[in-house]
Amino acid sequence: MGYAVLSTWKMSFNGALIAGEVLKNGGTPLEAIKAGINDVENNPDYLSVGYGGLPNREGEVELDAAIMDGSTGLFGGIMGVKGIANPIDVALDLSQKRLNCLLCGTGAEKYARLKGFEFKNMLTEKAKKQWEEQEIKNNDAESLVSYNGHDTVSFVARQGTFLAAGVSTSGIFLKVPGRVGDSPIVGGGLYSDSEAGAAAATGDGEDILRGCLSYEIVRQMESGKTAMEACETTLCNHLKKMNRKGLKIGPVSLIALDADGGFGAATSLNEFAFIYTDNSTPPAVWIAGAKTGVVKATGERLSQYTRD
Amino acid sequence: MGYAVLSTWKMSFNGALIAGEVLKNGGTPLEAIKAGINDVENNPDYLSVGYGGLPNREGEVELDAAIMDGSTGLFGGIMGVKGIANPIDVALDLSQKRLNCLLCGTGAEKYARLKGFEFKNMLTEKAKKQWEEQEIKNNDAESLVSYNGHDTVSFVARQGTFLAAGVSTSGIFLKVPGRVGDSPIVGGGLYSDSEAGAAAATGDGEDILRGCLSYEIVRQMESGKTAMEACETTLCNHLKKMNRKGLKIGPVSLIALDADGGFGAATSLNEFAFIYTDNSTPPAVWIAGAKTGVVKATGERLSQYTRD
Repeated sequence: MGYAVLSTWKMSFNGALIAGEVLKNGGTPLEAIKAGINDVENNPDYLSVGYGGLPNREGEVELDAAIMDGSTGLFGGIMGVKGIANPIDVALDLSQKRLNCLLCGTGAEKYARLKGFEFKNMLTEKAKKQWEEQEIKNNDAESLVSYNGHDTVSFVARQGTFLAAGVSTSGIFLKVPGRVGDSPIVGGGLYSDSEAGAAAATGDGEDILRGCLSYEIVRQMESGKTAMEACETTLCNHLKKMNRKGLKIGPVSLIALDADGGFGAATSLNEFAFIYTDNSTPPAVWIAGAKTGVVKATGERLSQYTRD
Repeated sequence: MGYAVLSTWKMSFNGALIAGEVLKNGGTPLEAIKAGINDVENNPDYLSVGYGGLPNREGEVELDAAIMDGSTGLFGGIMGVKGIANPIDVALDLSQKRLNCLLCGTGAEKYARLKGFEFKNMLTEKAKKQWEEQEIKNNDAESLVSYNGHDTVSFVARQGTFLAAGVSTSGIFLKVPGRVGDSPIVGGGLYSDSEAGAAAATGDGEDILRGCLSYEIVRQMESGKTAMEACETTLCNHLKKMNRKGLKIGPVSLIALDADGGFGAATSLNEFAFIYTDNSTPPAVWIAGAKTGVVKATGERLSQYTRD
């Protein structure tokens, strides 16, 4: 079966390369995901994950991360934490426990401190400047409008028959302090079951949570669908159901690896870029589109595609 | 179709009675759940919910609650909060928003304070005494062993074709500060979709989360199973899957209402008590058992059954 890595957004290109190297050298998918996500967390240019992430409406960077081991069913996650340099590392540590593996706020920070994880000021000058500019525009706190800068980095990876999923994010720009989206929640932002497949999500977290989309994708794969069919069916059913309920939902993008070696993606956006690599193919950018399906990005197309 | 209320553990008997009254008077299932859960939250004799809940390993009471509206798909939840008198009220308030509806820790407390919700010291003398006794027995913090006092109060309710689910808990006794279980997480501890059904859970939260059990029950009902079949199938499949993965999981109990007027429950315990009432039957205690299925408790059986 070999190995494979699938990750969200162009910002994860280098991380996917690193994750692929870990797997090539015999590492587990958990180790690969940690290494891939660390690369994104540490890059101050990415405004939606880790160091350099955009702050909440009070100007503080609050982070979420989680990881799930598809072979054991164990998971770990942290939510609404400040100052932790690499949230995914704490999630990975917690995923070794059956209980007390999902921690929030100051309790999660205390755990990370006691365990010796690195702390640093996660607010960069660049992120602070964006916050200050936005604050001037929105002088009424209740009307603060976030923008499109909440792109979670999500990885799913395989080593042979062992599947895992992991995510890290700073959440929606200008979120209410303490707000948690789908990212640290198994079933919502990520899910992995080596018998069936692994999936992860990015987009408006509350809209992903209300459909348990990552779990649903894995369940569809368990019932025989390919990763691609499962992503498309899950997204389509969710959009139709929320439409019937009269709820206008935000952007949602999904990725998955199935247990048979396939990968898939689906999006409600015009363009959603993701990265795929496996033991026989180097990392490449793929584009999923609400109207165009999933295509490998050509050089030309890529040069037109400016989103990070 | 009329109305119905289903709730976990004998401690919810009076709450179910109150919730039934709300529905009889034309209230929504959300209003009924709030009223029923408030009764349990406010009772200092119940050591696992609200006022009087047992504290974490540092002696602080941390609370979780959530509610989901099955007609709109909206939900609200708070996690790891201290001093909020009625967590379910804050969850209900948050469930009116599409985004920023799931809040943790100090951010959630700040929101509740700004919105004028009541704060009080949630640690009773009785709960403090239990904590002090346990602390003496466990002098090594890493080996702290919680006991069986983590029974979440979960309600599912129907008014005609409108279904909802809600939960409130103080979580596992002696939990790690910041620990969050299934209770405040849609898909895990609760799920509601008026088209299909509503479900909720109680037990070891992490084990419920790793199977997305409330979502899975609703999904089974959507595919045509009754509430009873869906609860049994979901629990059975989860136990078998975790067994295949080599993970020894803790107690799990489940309740559900289907869209056709039926109710169901399943448990991995020898006995799990729940309450059912609807427009034609007064509240009664029912017992689900891993070996005995679901039976209405007789007076005799009840008198032998001492658990609160």
